[in-house]
Amino acid sequence: MTIVNIITAIDSMKGSITSAQANSIVKEAFKDKDTLIEKVAIADGGEGTVEAFISNCGGEYKRVETYDLSGEIMLATFGWIQSEALAIIESADTAGIHLLDKTKKTHPLYTSTQGVGETIKAAINIGAKQIIIGLGGTGTIDAGIGALDALNFKFLDKDKNRLKAIGKNIKCIDSVCTNEIHPQLNDVKFILASDVSSYLTGLQGAVYMFGRQKGLLESEMKTYEKHMMHFQNEILAKASSKSGDGAAGGLGIGLRYFLQAKSISGLTLMTNYFKLNKKLSKADLVITGEGKIDDQSLQGKVPIGISRIAQRYNVPAIAFVGTIEGEPETFKKNGLSVVVPIIDKITNLNQAMNDTEQNLQRVAKRTKDLLFTLK
Amino acid sequence: MTIVNIITAIDSMKGSITSAQANSIVKEAFKDKDTLIEKVAIADGGEGTVEAFISNCGGEYKRVETYDLSGEIMLATFGWIQSEALAIIESADTAGIHLLDKTKKTHPLYTSTQGVGETIKAAINIGAKQIIIGLGGTGTIDAGIGALDALNFKFLDKDKNRLKAIGKNIKCIDSVCTNEIHPQLNDVKFILASDVSSYLTGLQGAVYMFGRQKGLLESEMKTYEKHMMHFQNEILAKASSKSGDGAAGGLGIGLRYFLQAKSISGLTLMTNYFKLNKKLSKADLVITGEGKIDDQSLQGKVPIGISRIAQRYNVPAIAFVGTIEGEPETFKKNGLSVVVPIIDKITNLNQAMNDTEQNLQRVAKRTKDLLFTLK
Repeated sequence: MTIVNIITAIDSMKGSITSAQANSIVKEAFKDKDTLIEKVAIADGGEGTVEAFISNCGGEYKRVETYDLSGEIMLATFGWIQSEALAIIESADTAGIHLLDKTKKTHPLYTSTQGVGETIKAAINIGAKQIIIGLGGTGTIDAGIGALDALNFKFLDKDKNRLKAIGKNIKCIDSVCTNEIHPQLNDVKFILASDVSSYLTGLQGAVYMFGRQKGLLESEMKTYEKHMMHFQNEILAKASSKSGDGAAGGLGIGLRYFLQAKSISGLTLMTNYFKLNKKLSKADLVITGEGKIDDQSLQGKVPIGISRIAQRYNVPAIAFVGTIEGEPETFKKNGLSVVVPIIDKITNLNQAMNDTEQNLQRVAKRTKDLLFTLK
Repeated sequence: MTIVNIITAIDSMKGSITSAQANSIVKEAFKDKDTLIEKVAIADGGEGTVEAFISNCGGEYKRVETYDLSGEIMLATFGWIQSEALAIIESADTAGIHLLDKTKKTHPLYTSTQGVGETIKAAINIGAKQIIIGLGGTGTIDAGIGALDALNFKFLDKDKNRLKAIGKNIKCIDSVCTNEIHPQLNDVKFILASDVSSYLTGLQGAVYMFGRQKGLLESEMKTYEKHMMHFQNEILAKASSKSGDGAAGGLGIGLRYFLQAKSISGLTLMTNYFKLNKKLSKADLVITGEGKIDDQSLQGKVPIGISRIAQRYNVPAIAFVGTIEGEPETFKKNGLSVVVPIIDKITNLNQAMNDTEQNLQRVAKRTKDLLFTLK
């Protein structure tokens, strides 16, 4: 029997296992004399972005003492690849939606991305020349002023007083003083990775599209949106119109406008960095997956992104997923031969989340056996 | 791509779908230009035995007005293959455990296999020369006296009075008068098909092993067992010692002793009748299945029975099942390459039973895709 070359590139299953864990489980299940398996950790710009870079490219984790979105002291983690002077930061690490607790201090009016800025500063201080910032999953809507403030951009009111860089002060910003910004900012290339295509304002924007899940009441949205309009029109000189600007509560546009950051889809970024085109083109089978596959997955989430590349090279792709919504035919058209759910017995959601590891193990082994039954 | 020859031989999934339905669903899911599929309906001697014969061999269903295990009038159904003068009867049709309702009249002391005897009579009356009786799933423990009584075997007490042929009178039987038994009984060959290997008495017997599920209390077992011992020692001249004699509450030994019936495993019987050896030897893939697979399945249930034949010819076999208990490796050793559960999402038992059809459809399609992904 000829050896079957397999690439695994499975996204994290949120709340259960990381991408690296999922890949390891599947690799172990497929390990056999007739398979050769290479794992590629992957993410969409959100959770798992740092881990994906570190596990694929080598490098190390760095710690920095900083502040979370409500100003509490915390230890942030970022990725550091010395050979490329590359730092990788997940904005959700310090400003993540998981940090919201329904108290006033975590309401978007009072939170900020200050921790992201502090982490950027730490990365620059150890010599970063490129910084990738994953934008997914923040609980903030501060248009990035918290992060920028940490880098010493000064947001001033009309009396030239420096404002505290939190959501509620966006409306008071009259000017921005850049005289004393971090001196090395100009030497650093910023790359923003995200999987969402929202705008800063409007119905597809940071407030109306994501405000609810960050704790805004319907009654608060109109006012909040006004503040964002003010920021866009008066401070950004109407510069914000790009898709992706609304990612991470406007952190996207903040960093793009003031740091000349480039936006890119998280998956495209990783595809390039991890040379997935080349790897996939030589494979006999690609295995991907994520927690849930649905019609939204067609808009650039990991499994479909991966399967589309595989399709380009006529390489079959399958996906392991926690939940399936949508039609197999739709996924097939996008290069996913089979979507395999990892639930295989009577269970409830809670149990299924807890058992993800064992379920994936079992289903992966079975899938391997099926793939090789007629081969 | 060369055509893949597939045989489906899936058992019923009890309480959900019949063997014929399961086979049709899988055939439909696998239908493609690169497959050639032959369905073989199958059973283990219990539920589905008649359907298996009729759908594989042609023939027709016959009706007869008779009595259920508690003496209520009912319409029984049996299979009739005119060309072979062959009738197929499921004892559970008239004496099935599903007819128990916790009232006194369905307690084993008061029930009988009379309906089985009446159905035999009806079959003989239309010309049957061979009668197959599937023994699985009865709610009776009457040692077959009900069925025999219907054929005019007279069970007499010590005063030569004819006893009512129900469970509680077994202990009173003193002799059996065969002078006026059905005149054509001698011209008929009886074959008993069963999947259980229980004895009439003892811990592996009709009372201790199956009594509980038929409504006997622990406290009733000792006395009931005594009656069976009486029957075995005094009436059967200690003839009962064969495995299978305890099947269907002793109907096995009753028909074997008084009608010279031959016992055979239901699956072996069908394997021979349906020429499964020949069919399977030429297949590229065999698909079997049942409601639940477990260690008991190793003792002659359908999927393992089928996979062992396939193994003999080096043909891979897979099984679709509702529930898996036991280790994949055990099943593999018995020729089942893969056991595929038909549950693929969060559900409860009730829902899963209701959704068996759709679940099997979905899982079968996915399995087909996996089987052909690397082919």
